[in-house]
Amino acid sequence: MKFVCDKNSLLEGVNIAIRGVSSRTTLPILQGIKITARGNVIKLSGTDLEIGIECQIPAVIEEEGETVVPARIFSDLVKKLPEGEVEVKSDSQNTVNVVSGDINFSIAGSNPEEFPEIPEVSREKSFKLPQSILKDLIKKTVFCVSEEQTRPILTGVLFEVFPNELKAVALDGFRMAIYSYKSEKSFFDEEAEKYSLVIPGDTIDEISRILEDEETEVIIYHTSNQVLFQIDNTKVISRLLEGSFINYNAVLPKDFKTEITINKDVFMESLERASLIAESKNNLVKFEIGDSFIVISSSSEKGSMSEKLEVEVKGMLLEIAFNSRYLLDALKAINEEEVNLYFINSINPLIIKPVGEKEYLYMILPVKLN
Amino acid sequence: MKFVCDKNSLLEGVNIAIRGVSSRTTLPILQGIKITARGNVIKLSGTDLEIGIECQIPAVIEEEGETVVPARIFSDLVKKLPEGEVEVKSDSQNTVNVVSGDINFSIAGSNPEEFPEIPEVSREKSFKLPQSILKDLIKKTVFCVSEEQTRPILTGVLFEVFPNELKAVALDGFRMAIYSYKSEKSFFDEEAEKYSLVIPGDTIDEISRILEDEETEVIIYHTSNQVLFQIDNTKVISRLLEGSFINYNAVLPKDFKTEITINKDVFMESLERASLIAESKNNLVKFEIGDSFIVISSSSEKGSMSEKLEVEVKGMLLEIAFNSRYLLDALKAINEEEVNLYFINSINPLIIKPVGEKEYLYMILPVKLN
Repeated sequence: MKFVCDKNSLLEGVNIAIRGVSSRTTLPILQGIKITARGNVIKLSGTDLEIGIECQIPAVIEEEGETVVPARIFSDLVKKLPEGEVEVKSDSQNTVNVVSGDINFSIAGSNPEEFPEIPEVSREKSFKLPQSILKDLIKKTVFCVSEEQTRPILTGVLFEVFPNELKAVALDGFRMAIYSYKSEKSFFDEEAEKYSLVIPGDTIDEISRILEDEETEVIIYHTSNQVLFQIDNTKVISRLLEGSFINYNAVLPKDFKTEITINKDVFMESLERASLIAESKNNLVKFEIGDSFIVISSSSEKGSMSEKLEVEVKGMLLEIAFNSRYLLDALKAINEEEVNLYFINSINPLIIKPVGEKEYLYMILPVKLN
Repeated sequence: MKFVCDKNSLLEGVNIAIRGVSSRTTLPILQGIKITARGNVIKLSGTDLEIGIECQIPAVIEEEGETVVPARIFSDLVKKLPEGEVEVKSDSQNTVNVVSGDINFSIAGSNPEEFPEIPEVSREKSFKLPQSILKDLIKKTVFCVSEEQTRPILTGVLFEVFPNELKAVALDGFRMAIYSYKSEKSFFDEEAEKYSLVIPGDTIDEISRILEDEETEVIIYHTSNQVLFQIDNTKVISRLLEGSFINYNAVLPKDFKTEITINKDVFMESLERASLIAESKNNLVKFEIGDSFIVISSSSEKGSMSEKLEVEVKGMLLEIAFNSRYLLDALKAINEEEVNLYFINSINPLIIKPVGEKEYLYMILPVKLN
């Protein structure tokens, strides 16, 4: 194998493929990036067997072929090369040579035949949406996936695809995020029923890091057990989680008795102060809702604190307590200036909605007060 | 105790005093900052018994007194307060109240009588220099102090004070840095012999973090075993290291046979590439000096690399090897664009001097080649 390409293109490709490489693998071949030179592109692939990432970059191929380079060293090395053209070649022993001007590196690669095949995903079923929207949708939901393996399906994000709507849902038993993206164009090429996919949280995290704030579209191909994200010249392939997701509509509370409108930043700063004093175990903060104010307080062996915020309150007065981390995670994901809080009583979940954004909803369970 | 002060002044003071607080102490009182309110200032003190840091900030004192607050919580709490005035008070049980508008914190402090006294340093002997110069002098030398406790004196930086010169020297048995600052004004108020202090490396590190790039002067008071740095409203008190420092002039090589002039950034980038491949144990990189070039190379089980740089060479050709970390540490501390390298042969130390800066010198021992 032998090719010449631009240093920055190569670095960009390596930085994407390396996201598929696990740093903790016990299988040495998985610490490598497979390079395939064919036609006028090279393909860089990394996989940890759960997720596979492939990235194509343009190159002048002088000799077609493939090899596997150690991911970490190769990425560091390309990063440290001067701007300009880089020549990469490998011999039959998979010794890899990287040359840039008077700089000459020689590193030991591995046999590409030992590198696991990244599965092909059929391109029959797909839907697409702009990168920037998928990125925002992920940011607003993925932090709610469960970290517990007791119900594996909850470690993923549910994507429900309707003809003109994409709904993303994540929940972990203590909180839930629902984000709905409405599209004027139908997601379906022909008449079809709605369908749903549950994508592992780790896959979603990696995808979010690859996505740019751009209008170009991501195409999402899927079968019954696999999904492929096509993002520009990058493919991310992952298994889907199997099983049925929770009927999230059934757990959404109704008939709210108390409604608050509050500035998001003021609310967050206050919660951060309360968190300093709260028990680090459950971050318990208490709300006392009066007729035109909310008193936020916490106490632990570190001390105690309380503060009073003037807010708009409609409905009944209330005392209720939460894990402040769950509140802060949700507020951080919100771009709007103000939020509405909807309560029923001190034991039913709270709903948070950004003012002026109907499509995002956040639910959080209270902590029982003694 | 009760006082009112500006949030940002208080935060600045706490952030300085906390530098004296060890995070790993087993003595609970040392995890605190002592606050003393007297006259129209409050004094914030932190100490780990090796170093003591005191910072004064203006405040309106309503009731004089003192208390000890838990450093980490207090600092986080002040940081999270809104801009404006803060009221701090403590009662006889050392319960500390922090109030800002409708925000009210109450935390458990400690008995100030248990807080160790930070020693007074006699103000008889002193010298002074601008903050920015002391900061630069530290940056250029402190990284060479020894990390081994086998010769404790080498864990400090030697300050030699002559009437019109301050020399700072640090060495660890593998490398040495010498920086000389010449002052037109005499450092001495009256006729005096030169004298020298060896200041612990940890103290010097903390001082460097407190110093600003400003022209205002630092006054350094010292006795036979203690030193006090007065930096604006901050005092840093530390013990001095005892014993006599190495006669560093005696180890400086002379009669160089080879001299190279090289661009610092080009040299550093090349060394960084060579370091990627070098054995991580000793970072061995090899130089082969020709009549108008230098070949830098390294090899290990990771692979091998070499690159050729066109440079100006005077004198004899040479092969020599170094620990690249020592070279990079020195080059990072140099502001100038070009450096001169002076060699005798492959077993004698290398001298590095920035072109156009006579007062800074860096010596490094080669690694023997087999």
